[in-house]
Amino acid sequence: MSDLQTLPTPSLLVDHPRVVRNVEWMGTRIAALGARLRPHVKTHKAIEVAQLQAKAGMHGITASTLAEARAFAAHGFDDITYAVPVEPGKFAAIVAMHTAGARVAVLTDDPEIPVPLAAAASAAGVTIDVFLKVDCGYGRAGVDPHGPALLEMAERIGAPSSLRFAGILAHAGHSYRARGRAQILAVANTERDVMVAAATRLRAHGIAVPTVSIGSTPTASHVDDLTGVHEVRTGNYVFYDLMQVAIGSCGPDDVALSVLTAVVHRDRAKGKLILDAGAIALSKDAGIADPDGVTHYGRLVTVEGEDLGLRITSVSQEHGWVQTHDAAVLDRLPVGTRVRVLVNHSCLTAAQFPYYEVCDGVRIVDRWTNHRGW
Amino acid sequence: MSDLQTLPTPSLLVDHPRVVRNVEWMGTRIAALGARLRPHVKTHKAIEVAQLQAKAGMHGITASTLAEARAFAAHGFDDITYAVPVEPGKFAAIVAMHTAGARVAVLTDDPEIPVPLAAAASAAGVTIDVFLKVDCGYGRAGVDPHGPALLEMAERIGAPSSLRFAGILAHAGHSYRARGRAQILAVANTERDVMVAAATRLRAHGIAVPTVSIGSTPTASHVDDLTGVHEVRTGNYVFYDLMQVAIGSCGPDDVALSVLTAVVHRDRAKGKLILDAGAIALSKDAGIADPDGVTHYGRLVTVEGEDLGLRITSVSQEHGWVQTHDAAVLDRLPVGTRVRVLVNHSCLTAAQFPYYEVCDGVRIVDRWTNHRGW
Repeated sequence: MSDLQTLPTPSLLVDHPRVVRNVEWMGTRIAALGARLRPHVKTHKAIEVAQLQAKAGMHGITASTLAEARAFAAHGFDDITYAVPVEPGKFAAIVAMHTAGARVAVLTDDPEIPVPLAAAASAAGVTIDVFLKVDCGYGRAGVDPHGPALLEMAERIGAPSSLRFAGILAHAGHSYRARGRAQILAVANTERDVMVAAATRLRAHGIAVPTVSIGSTPTASHVDDLTGVHEVRTGNYVFYDLMQVAIGSCGPDDVALSVLTAVVHRDRAKGKLILDAGAIALSKDAGIADPDGVTHYGRLVTVEGEDLGLRITSVSQEHGWVQTHDAAVLDRLPVGTRVRVLVNHSCLTAAQFPYYEVCDGVRIVDRWTNHRGW
Repeated sequence: MSDLQTLPTPSLLVDHPRVVRNVEWMGTRIAALGARLRPHVKTHKAIEVAQLQAKAGMHGITASTLAEARAFAAHGFDDITYAVPVEPGKFAAIVAMHTAGARVAVLTDDPEIPVPLAAAASAAGVTIDVFLKVDCGYGRAGVDPHGPALLEMAERIGAPSSLRFAGILAHAGHSYRARGRAQILAVANTERDVMVAAATRLRAHGIAVPTVSIGSTPTASHVDDLTGVHEVRTGNYVFYDLMQVAIGSCGPDDVALSVLTAVVHRDRAKGKLILDAGAIALSKDAGIADPDGVTHYGRLVTVEGEDLGLRITSVSQEHGWVQTHDAAVLDRLPVGTRVRVLVNHSCLTAAQFPYYEVCDGVRIVDRWTNHRGW
């Protein structure tokens, strides 16, 4: 049986008890707030995590790629919202998934999309659910909830018989700029209020809004009132990461993902370690600077989880660079020592590996495939 | 037959004529300087590129992972230098490759490595070539070429009968901080001079130095005298990228790698485009800031290669964000339009994709597998 001393390095580790706890916690919390949870599988891309989420009470999944949509549909998770604005190059693949029996809802905010999408659906004899993407303050995509496009686009989507206006959908990505519960709650309240008001405007014009869908991991972790919201989409919460700790979405003990790496170089005089986890294994997401102003690519803990007080402050392709003046900790870490890296952004790190080594403590208990790509 | 209008997005594109030209150019240049080229396959991880490199006169390969080493050995490229400092967790895999007939040279700068490595080799009845890693100024790893460790480590490596002291090896990673030919040449000259002097010191103490191995793409692209150097390792030159253009290693027309992406959102009023290539597809390497101070994740060109004057200034997992006040260019780019992204760091971007779509102009002529992972 493998354990953390016999796995190759770098390897992607997931702490099974923590994932189970995170999944159950969010499932319970969103149900208690009276909404349906449609988790975003972009973070984990693993059927086994979706199976845990299903046990914790999810209602369909959210996907970030058609590769995810196909992989999860093939495993019975065929109620899917593809949450990147749809474009004509993907119509055929989405229609084909419908023809094969899956429901793949899409989203758009573009006036030129409904007509050709409807034609593609109609030609195949399928009906596609289409959400109107609304900008609740993040600014990345979506119509202005206060402007004329909200009504115009809802009508355009609802007009063709082969499309169904599924409702309105937003992602409060600006919650990543919040720090601490009060700031996150302020974003969460705006996210909810903007979307409920948009739904009210649409209904006042006689447009039914079957689903009001919102979500981001910071807001979903703290929101305390979801009145008027039907559905919450959140992905990162299954693993969390250092960025979520810095934002205040979770505590350090909730982080379930890490990268196992080995020391490959030690220079006591220069106070330096090099690890075999670099820019590919960790991703080059610099995350959020620590309170002392240092940006880094991860924090080191022992295989048992003890904080070593070390950070990876530079990465090249397969090398992670650590500087320290702590001679005692350098003494503990000869070449060949394995350590774990808690990473800034678990979604990006996980996507670098073909599978997860699933741990319970230092024991490997399972391996989960990561359905990467596009 | 696929072309750039029918491929899924995002897809990884490689320009076949440019790769052939880059490979032949570097092969000719290093041979003309009297050294052997041992290209680093970490950039491309593709058997087909190594086959082009073999035609252009390479002498073995350099690998950054054991996964690369195994994949290339299985395709006949079994003279390999594994160029991350070796640690005990990898001894068994390296010995197994030797037993299977490959030569996998390793490198170390650590006094505690030779004895256990020799024991592992001896137990399997194999002899392993070991380079002494020398720091030629980058500072990442390697012994001080002027200090006592140079001699001590060469002796430690050469002592056991199951190890062979293969020579000294350095990587001038600090060439990435150079800008323009004169600064690159200064680093290249130091890289060469430091290593030739280190070899001279070793020989003066009666230690044979079979190979002096150096290399980085900026220095290999400009060095004009390799007297005393036997071997050059360089990887990025097969594709180059925007970082190499900014350093001055190559010109914009030498960049052979790009990511095909589609516009998924356009907001004329806000001067904004969103593409379906984000932090995973492009990597989150911010590269080198443009002369106007802007850091970004890539420049956009049309599928035919025309510069659109646009940059991706922000990325989230599957979204790339472009801002422009150029109404004419926004008019040309409705949702669904395909564009190509020239990326900052081709090594990291290539590693995000399972294969390359090989293009000649807008035609897809081949598909090459990317041997990723560890």
